Amino acid sequence: MPRGLFISFEGIDGVGKSTQVKLLAEYLGEAGREVTLTREPGGTELGDSIREILLHSKGHIDARAEALLYAADRAQHVALEIEPALAAGCDVITDRYLDSSVAYQGAGRELGHDEVRALSLFAVKGLLPNLTVLLDLSVDQAAARLAGTELDRLESEKAEFFEAVRQGFLSLAAAEPNRWLVLDASLPPAEIAAAIRTRVASLI
Amino acid sequence: MPRGLFISFEGIDGVGKSTQVKLLAEYLGEAGREVTLTREPGGTELGDSIREILLHSKGHIDARAEALLYAADRAQHVALEIEPALAAGCDVITDRYLDSSVAYQGAGRELGHDEVRALSLFAVKGLLPNLTVLLDLSVDQAAARLAGTELDRLESEKAEFFEAVRQGFLSLAAAEPNRWLVLDASLPPAEIAAAIRTRVASLI
Repeated sequence: MPRGLFISFEGIDGVGKSTQVKLLAEYLGEAGREVTLTREPGGTELGDSIREILLHSKGHIDARAEALLYAADRAQHVALEIEPALAAGCDVITDRYLDSSVAYQGAGRELGHDEVRALSLFAVKGLLPNLTVLLDLSVDQAAARLAGTELDRLESEKAEFFEAVRQGFLSLAAAEPNRWLVLDASLPPAEIAAAIRTRVASLI
Repeated sequence: MPRGLFISFEGIDGVGKSTQVKLLAEYLGEAGREVTLTREPGGTELGDSIREILLHSKGHIDARAEALLYAADRAQHVALEIEPALAAGCDVITDRYLDSSVAYQGAGRELGHDEVRALSLFAVKGLLPNLTVLLDLSVDQAAARLAGTELDRLESEKAEFFEAVRQGFLSLAAAEPNRWLVLDASLPPAEIAAAIRTRVASLI
């Protein structure tokens, strides 16, 4: 049984990841392939308990403890859901994966980029996607798509943070061009979907 | 305000760690120093929630997820208790620290020694003890001290595991001789305490 393809979608909120995840799943399904859709954070029982702690714990949670709890959630998600599906020959498409941790944490600057990456790789036992699609869009445009926010309504502090996250994703993509496909998320969805299908077809 | 001394005690169960922790705390107290005693796992609120998950979660917990949860507990313990006490000039004595994870996990062999060590160092932000006391004793003798167990009552599987843990501690000590003090735990407690005091006095 050949392993399934593992594909992740990354980008800040509002770039259209869920639309493209759905379109790619339809394409793979029409090609006669089994597809598993998932997202981070994962929905394992352990993951639910961990998020319960993160959301409802009174008092301060140390930044490293928090990163380790998210990593524990990811480890369980990979071990119980993603890896068994891939081993069974299913394609797995995930809405966000470890690159999100690196990009968001790097933007927050509490922990180092390399440390967060090493921690994430430990958690997933080195499992990287065959393809990571980055839907790239300016922060203004992404914000405008979310809940019809006016451009000038995005506070500058938040805008700076999301711009740092966006640049984080672009740096990660530049460092591993073979794994990443960077697409302009301002293009029509059908055009984006076609570009993704072309790249995925080359991997099948 | 000079930082306090950070001292950890390691060794398999039954070697007399708690006795020596107490004797060293008395010695430091008599020398007019502030002393904080602690142990792993730590007793933070977050740590309690994490252990609740580990003990009562139904279903399988992935080995990496488990290691990450223990590391999260340690990160919180260091950030909220150990580091603030040291910064305030208190000496901190802990009954077990990150070397226990490496020795026990290495013996279990599910995860690699280097990975567990890297994960632990991330959790504690690189904070290593000024001194780590290893109380070394044969597995048979340690078992005999615990609840008066007869020597031949220790099942060979358990004996092999604890022997691997013991050897793990000895390897760690050999790799960092400046940090470790290895003592024969079959000696009289007062003699062991005197050896520890001599070494600690040289650090004050």
